[in-house]
Amino acid sequence: MNQGTTSTVRARVGQSVAGVRLAVAAAGIRYQGRDDLVLIEMAEGGTAAAVFTRNQFCAAPVVVAREHLARDSTRYLLINSGNANAGTGDEGMRAARETCRAVAAMAGCAMNEVLPFSTGVIGEDLPTAPFQQAVPGLMQGLSADAWERAANAIMTTDTRPKYCSAQVELSGGTVTVTGMSKGSGMIRPDMATMLAYVATDAQVDSGTLQEMLNQAVAPSFNSITVDGDTSTNDACVLLASGASGIPVTEGSADAQLLQSALDEVCMYLAREIVRDGEGATKLVEIVVDNARDEMDARAVAYTIAHSPLVKTALFASDPNWGRILAAVGRAGVDDMDLDAVRIFLDDVSIVRDGGRDPAYREEDGQRVFDQDSYEIRVDLGMGNAGTRVLTCDLSYDYVKINAEYRS
Amino acid sequence: MNQGTTSTVRARVGQSVAGVRLAVAAAGIRYQGRDDLVLIEMAEGGTAAAVFTRNQFCAAPVVVAREHLARDSTRYLLINSGNANAGTGDEGMRAARETCRAVAAMAGCAMNEVLPFSTGVIGEDLPTAPFQQAVPGLMQGLSADAWERAANAIMTTDTRPKYCSAQVELSGGTVTVTGMSKGSGMIRPDMATMLAYVATDAQVDSGTLQEMLNQAVAPSFNSITVDGDTSTNDACVLLASGASGIPVTEGSADAQLLQSALDEVCMYLAREIVRDGEGATKLVEIVVDNARDEMDARAVAYTIAHSPLVKTALFASDPNWGRILAAVGRAGVDDMDLDAVRIFLDDVSIVRDGGRDPAYREEDGQRVFDQDSYEIRVDLGMGNAGTRVLTCDLSYDYVKINAEYRS
Repeated sequence: MNQGTTSTVRARVGQSVAGVRLAVAAAGIRYQGRDDLVLIEMAEGGTAAAVFTRNQFCAAPVVVAREHLARDSTRYLLINSGNANAGTGDEGMRAARETCRAVAAMAGCAMNEVLPFSTGVIGEDLPTAPFQQAVPGLMQGLSADAWERAANAIMTTDTRPKYCSAQVELSGGTVTVTGMSKGSGMIRPDMATMLAYVATDAQVDSGTLQEMLNQAVAPSFNSITVDGDTSTNDACVLLASGASGIPVTEGSADAQLLQSALDEVCMYLAREIVRDGEGATKLVEIVVDNARDEMDARAVAYTIAHSPLVKTALFASDPNWGRILAAVGRAGVDDMDLDAVRIFLDDVSIVRDGGRDPAYREEDGQRVFDQDSYEIRVDLGMGNAGTRVLTCDLSYDYVKINAEYRS
Repeated sequence: MNQGTTSTVRARVGQSVAGVRLAVAAAGIRYQGRDDLVLIEMAEGGTAAAVFTRNQFCAAPVVVAREHLARDSTRYLLINSGNANAGTGDEGMRAARETCRAVAAMAGCAMNEVLPFSTGVIGEDLPTAPFQQAVPGLMQGLSADAWERAANAIMTTDTRPKYCSAQVELSGGTVTVTGMSKGSGMIRPDMATMLAYVATDAQVDSGTLQEMLNQAVAPSFNSITVDGDTSTNDACVLLASGASGIPVTEGSADAQLLQSALDEVCMYLAREIVRDGEGATKLVEIVVDNARDEMDARAVAYTIAHSPLVKTALFASDPNWGRILAAVGRAGVDDMDLDAVRIFLDDVSIVRDGGRDPAYREEDGQRVFDQDSYEIRVDLGMGNAGTRVLTCDLSYDYVKINAEYRS
């Protein structure tokens, strides 16, 4: 991997964010004896931005969160693991709204100020009684220092919590960006699936905040794939409490600095999801350069990243360029010139002039593929557009995890 | 599976076709001590039709076969296994032409009357000496009764030969349709990949023959998928020797009868490829009904058929409707109404009104999924278009075969 996470992101650090408090409970929604419910509170006057799954069959909490976000400011995020409340029809909508109402009643805010999120098994009714019982304790237990515990509570098949912090010096002082995510397998409808929450104490108007989030998710959460399945429940929320009193206005130098910190936090959390992909043993960045436009670049990158043949070759540490070349050829890009296409494994040239590079030596490719993390770069020789997509290999354990999960 | 192969197709019967002869040799192109080279001869005056891979990086023999087919009538098909002659640049083109020239010289025909086909490992130069040595013996050994041996010789990772025959009574008498195919994993670039050859002794002009082939491959070879990878070498050729002296003209009742026999032969050969898919333990037909148009129907069917999550659930015999529903939702069909979507496992209704059918019982779904072969039907409730796609499960053995193949 050529692009590392820069040192400004501190991995597995859940630095508190002024104006944001969290609480965690073991509500027994599905799992017994482990935390499965998180409440995040943002101080009044903060702003929120969010991006959601593009799956047409989005889960009830996604529908409700979108509605509430459009109608009102946001004060609370309520997140449960163990049950996705997806494919649950009208009953699921009622349940999602009822859980928001429980928080609103206790907090004395409007129901629209609460956003619900669920992750877990699809197609089972969400029991609301555990929420009713847990909410009073959650409200009392709110603390600025619960990021790590919250990152653990939102896990489903994840093997480890994913959270990090960055701090950035703006003209008015230092602000913090802290985030957490869950997801193991992008995307796994059962344990539906990717959730990410990022908060900052900078003061940002909601339009600017949404633009910042859109920019941050494009190369991170929207450029990762484990198995190509898009969940019904994906959501990424960015909160800006403003509690630092440090304003960030659109287009300013400060906005660029905050954007960088946000980008890095999102990229770290996204990489952690792929690294923790179901059965994954390799983290591979697919880079496509010199495409005609970004759509072509994305088509090529995702065709490689989703090819079961490429992914099993990654698992086998087999630098099988024929599989990569065949994936490029079927990506649906018109008028490709095979002779102009070049493929590199890190810096090793493996394909040129329509076939194996005469200078390529098997041991050089093998050395790259023996690493845990590396880059496959395809130069299409057609234009100036490019993209990067993060993926992992397809292993026996992927089949095992997904074949045996419900048994 | 509701649609069976009708009794008119005789499985694993290689009925001779008047005007068509075959010969097989162990040329030692890659494998030692097994047949790896097939020559098919059609009598003068016959017609040929073909369809080829849509992969932009098609192999040298595909380029040459297309050229030759466009320029001249077809007398000979030359097929080798063990080496795909793909990703081999200019050298590969020279090799493909040289093998055609060897046959033409011996047969006394034009080089353009020979079509070359290769299947096997990508990216290794095709040695032409074995062809030069084998061609004289092949020419002498031509026989009408070598379909079974030929079907064996074109195999790569296939576990069994795939061939069948049908006979159909036309107004002028009985004609025969015999075909063979290879492919295990649709598609596997290494052993690149699907080849099918079908011959009839009916007399059909080449325009009509091409239309018949197009119609026959749409629901068969173009509606199967094991892993979504499209090979660089796919080809399906239909020969009509005319040796029966029975003419079939476009639009006639005879043409419909011949089309039916051809459809059934192609469907049998296509099913055999999926049934022999790499590591496959299940043969599953994905049926999409009541789509807005066929493009939507195909998008939904293939999204289900390619989903690693659905395929691992098929392997596990787990009627996991959440994974199916999530695949429908991310297929890229606009304005779907979740509440109108219905999903059936054979005749068992499992999804309606946005969630699990209240009448669904787990044991009913389990009974369907415990079978070796069944149907998953999605009713989109949007229009009148539909499609069918054949697929298989994703098993440990798929990973094993594809991870260990080159080691």
